[in-house]
Amino acid sequence: MCQLLGMNCNTPTDIMFSFEGFRRRGGITDHHADGFGIGFFEGKGVRLFHDDKPSADSPVADLVRAYQIKSENVIAHIRKASQGQTSLANTHPFMREMWGEYWLFAHNGHLLDFYPEQGVFYKAVGSTDSERAFCYILNSLRSRFPEKPDEETLFAAIAALTAEIRSHGLFNFVMSNGDCLFAHASTLLHYIVRKAPFGKARLLDDDVMIDFAEVTTPNDKVAVIATLPLTRDESWLQLAVNELAMFQHGDIVRSDKPAEPVYMSTEEGLAIARAVGVSV
Amino acid sequence: MCQLLGMNCNTPTDIMFSFEGFRRRGGITDHHADGFGIGFFEGKGVRLFHDDKPSADSPVADLVRAYQIKSENVIAHIRKASQGQTSLANTHPFMREMWGEYWLFAHNGHLLDFYPEQGVFYKAVGSTDSERAFCYILNSLRSRFPEKPDEETLFAAIAALTAEIRSHGLFNFVMSNGDCLFAHASTLLHYIVRKAPFGKARLLDDDVMIDFAEVTTPNDKVAVIATLPLTRDESWLQLAVNELAMFQHGDIVRSDKPAEPVYMSTEEGLAIARAVGVSV
Repeated sequence: MCQLLGMNCNTPTDIMFSFEGFRRRGGITDHHADGFGIGFFEGKGVRLFHDDKPSADSPVADLVRAYQIKSENVIAHIRKASQGQTSLANTHPFMREMWGEYWLFAHNGHLLDFYPEQGVFYKAVGSTDSERAFCYILNSLRSRFPEKPDEETLFAAIAALTAEIRSHGLFNFVMSNGDCLFAHASTLLHYIVRKAPFGKARLLDDDVMIDFAEVTTPNDKVAVIATLPLTRDESWLQLAVNELAMFQHGDIVRSDKPAEPVYMSTEEGLAIARAVGVSV
Repeated sequence: MCQLLGMNCNTPTDIMFSFEGFRRRGGITDHHADGFGIGFFEGKGVRLFHDDKPSADSPVADLVRAYQIKSENVIAHIRKASQGQTSLANTHPFMREMWGEYWLFAHNGHLLDFYPEQGVFYKAVGSTDSERAFCYILNSLRSRFPEKPDEETLFAAIAALTAEIRSHGLFNFVMSNGDCLFAHASTLLHYIVRKAPFGKARLLDDDVMIDFAEVTTPNDKVAVIATLPLTRDESWLQLAVNELAMFQHGDIVRSDKPAEPVYMSTEEGLAIARAVGVSV
């Protein structure tokens, strides 16, 4: 199973602390050695970094760390290939333009027999189930909405498409248009909303500590979404199984959480990933 | 006026020597200080680096140099803003997916009153004339060809669209889909095809020399396209005014060079750029 990382904030924020723990899962503390990718929105623009080297020793990851890019929306992914050969064209996040906005998408999971008809607007360049799912979502939205609909309509449409796609298998994803971030859990997806009063936290994957109070202002609100919690000393929350959440300005603003939510244990989630042949 | 750089080869080639001279025009030997961008095709995938810092002292440019990415098709651009504010969304090269391929586009020039109707397939995200021109080309091609046409038809279609757009002003561009590279000169665009027997060359913008014989094999063929020649000790050729050339496997394979080609002097080309308010 690959690992996902997302960030959604109400002010441009440096993701380096979270990224530092996350990237170490790509080859040091965990085995996701088939490349990584990270996309930062800056205004309407996107700064996108892809690498087919393990994130733990990638010079691109070094740059990302050194550069301290501040962003309101970040989508990142460490890949352990399950479908599709390892190549740059198969490296998440995938990007397309829709309605005059760039959209980024990263997927963790495995879709069985998912070969929807190639749509009119978007075609997969690589050979992953993930890019096919992303193109299917965008083609469906564009066919239905020539112009961008209001948020409630958009959320409902993405939720319906998500339910359709997850009938094909494991479909954890994060997706953003630079304004909001959609996160969906088939199995494991955790998040935390950091806001005042800010405390301290220590990375699970590295002996690095941060005092958020020193690097934030009292109005900052930062949501970090990750496959598995990245820090100790903090209470991470979990998306329910089959929950789609929409983050905006650093917090969840919409969700289709089931009336009787089920939360999957980490052990169970990892076992499911292994059972469908997705390496963990 | 911004500076363009393109490379098209028959084998994955390191562009670092050319890029080293090129990037120094972004703030050291010339004044193109509003950011730069470079996109490398690797197979069907694209590695894209954008920066709004001058290329001469950009850490992203340092990474590009250190990383020694080998690619068969490269599109790069140093920007001096003429239309549209300086922002990441306005930084070339622009990227879109068409027919299941990524396309990269970079423009040097200035289009007057160029506000084509927003097409069905692609919309500009930023506010430049350049991105509008790119979207116009892609929208027109996609509307006419639901599937990718043969090369002759594609070249003729792009040539016709180019002629239409250049009626609005200065339209030097380079564009690639990872297989071939289209280069068009309204005014100044130079190129060189390096092949065996390889010689030595020295950068015009830096005291760096390279012996291509040491870094190539006898079968290599590498075309480098740039606004102005990058080296001494080599004979750069020039695209004629209003010529569209298609490079493939390191050489020009198609061109619509006028029957009586006109070649613009550097002085004249720079004067035209200044006259329409494009900084040089």
